[in-house]
Amino acid sequence: MKKYCFGIDVGGTTVKCGLFDVKGTVLDKWEIPTRIENNGSNILPDVADTIIDKIREKELDREEIAGVGLGVPGPVNEEGEVLTAVNLHWGYIHLTAQMEKLTGLEVKAGNDANVAALGEMWKGGGAGYHNVVLVTLGTGVGGGIINNGEIVTGTHGAGGEIGHVHVTDSVDFDCNCGNRGCLEQVASATGITYLANRRLAKDETPSVLRGQEVSAKAVFDAVKQNDAVAIEIAEEFGKFLGLALANIAGVTDPDVFVIGGGVSKAGPILLDYVRKYYREYAFMSCKETPFALAELGNDAGIYGAAKLVL
Amino acid sequence: MKKYCFGIDVGGTTVKCGLFDVKGTVLDKWEIPTRIENNGSNILPDVADTIIDKIREKELDREEIAGVGLGVPGPVNEEGEVLTAVNLHWGYIHLTAQMEKLTGLEVKAGNDANVAALGEMWKGGGAGYHNVVLVTLGTGVGGGIINNGEIVTGTHGAGGEIGHVHVTDSVDFDCNCGNRGCLEQVASATGITYLANRRLAKDETPSVLRGQEVSAKAVFDAVKQNDAVAIEIAEEFGKFLGLALANIAGVTDPDVFVIGGGVSKAGPILLDYVRKYYREYAFMSCKETPFALAELGNDAGIYGAAKLVL
Repeated sequence: MKKYCFGIDVGGTTVKCGLFDVKGTVLDKWEIPTRIENNGSNILPDVADTIIDKIREKELDREEIAGVGLGVPGPVNEEGEVLTAVNLHWGYIHLTAQMEKLTGLEVKAGNDANVAALGEMWKGGGAGYHNVVLVTLGTGVGGGIINNGEIVTGTHGAGGEIGHVHVTDSVDFDCNCGNRGCLEQVASATGITYLANRRLAKDETPSVLRGQEVSAKAVFDAVKQNDAVAIEIAEEFGKFLGLALANIAGVTDPDVFVIGGGVSKAGPILLDYVRKYYREYAFMSCKETPFALAELGNDAGIYGAAKLVL
Repeated sequence: MKKYCFGIDVGGTTVKCGLFDVKGTVLDKWEIPTRIENNGSNILPDVADTIIDKIREKELDREEIAGVGLGVPGPVNEEGEVLTAVNLHWGYIHLTAQMEKLTGLEVKAGNDANVAALGEMWKGGGAGYHNVVLVTLGTGVGGGIINNGEIVTGTHGAGGEIGHVHVTDSVDFDCNCGNRGCLEQVASATGITYLANRRLAKDETPSVLRGQEVSAKAVFDAVKQNDAVAIEIAEEFGKFLGLALANIAGVTDPDVFVIGGGVSKAGPILLDYVRKYYREYAFMSCKETPFALAELGNDAGIYGAAKLVL
């Protein structure tokens, strides 16, 4: 009878670790540094060590541990292999096989954004649903698609690469991915800042945004103060994200869209702008699909990683 | 030991029927008329009768029949219920339950476009793959998404409603769905005709398309003759469809895109225009995803329906 599992979220600077019971209660939560030197060759041994230490500390019976779930910042294929994970300085790694050898436990792995979507479906903004689209609006735009309770990984691990869906011909610089007009360029924290500066440069309309350093937070704070220019920026953001999500609805038709990441801290008002344009563009039977804010914050990764092995 | 199954594709005018062995060989293929009078209440009894007749005719052992798969022109939910199927004059029907009662056999059902995608994955242009996107370019644009060998149905049965993905703000009339700028408006047979007439009206550039009735077929025939105006129209079509498929790649990242329907009879040259723009818009790891022409034509539905019960 399995009672416990580990959920591990490997980031570029820290590894977040969670010990869960099989119902999804966090029993312990801690972090270790991510040592990326020497092509990140210490990362997996460090993770294995901290798991083995925790098993000893808690006096867990190995027979009662369902396994270890890992989320990593890069594409992971169905076999548990990573071709490259730039932020960890990894080239090819057979992630699950190496980790199973190091820990003697069953290991499952996935891309961190996809795994976070699974976490939000399990215990967060998408709880109770089986078809969930998570969009994370941070420095970039990430995403994860859950269909019938399973991560949509895709052939090249690019399932849920929502940040690089093309939404506009109006931007005049390249995205980090090499394309131009990606959702990430206009809906991430930096993307909203770009939209704001572009709008402010257009004319001299007074705005509380003038004379301060513009940020996504500043824009939504100004929207809450009914600033006309900020509202225009929020409308433009809402149009791009609403369009992208409407087009996703025509592909996988989820139960719910969950919006997370730093930008989502603006709260329900952000959803209002997205929903408005989503409804304009979405296919008729999907126009009422609900929107929710993510609830697990930075813990979505460890929850989702734990769920991988359950 | 199951040896046989039936694949049934219910259309607005005829019901296509197939008797298959479990390896996917068609043993018999026939049609019956679709009687849509009286709210389509004869359709299921007619289908059941023709199946029972075929079992008698072929002297099949019922124990050896895996079941009956049904494709219908409307959304079908996971429980096998249809809320409405306009072309069949159906309101709510518990399709699988009724058909099981009528035939005494196990029944599975799906939307016809999704089922056709399953057929193309099994025995057509997507054979050998498990993640397949089928786009059908006919009078409208239909589609089906197969992920890990399973149809992506979606919460409202709108999974794979690719025809209603928004691709342009440049059209000046509404789509049948009520929105404006849908892929169907610019990539179906009628959509290509619209693009052609719009281009021809723009100026007086000579073209073989002038003085004849414009159609999607005429456009691609003219492209094959190197007609400059026709090539412009094909480029515009390719841009819209390439964009839509690139955005789908960022969601489900398929192994292959399969293009079917009457418009696809233009052949490989059509794929060239789509692939060109697909590569421009697709996320880097998906740029080389292959394109194939559908191979089963009007039989995709019976193949996919049969596969539903295997």
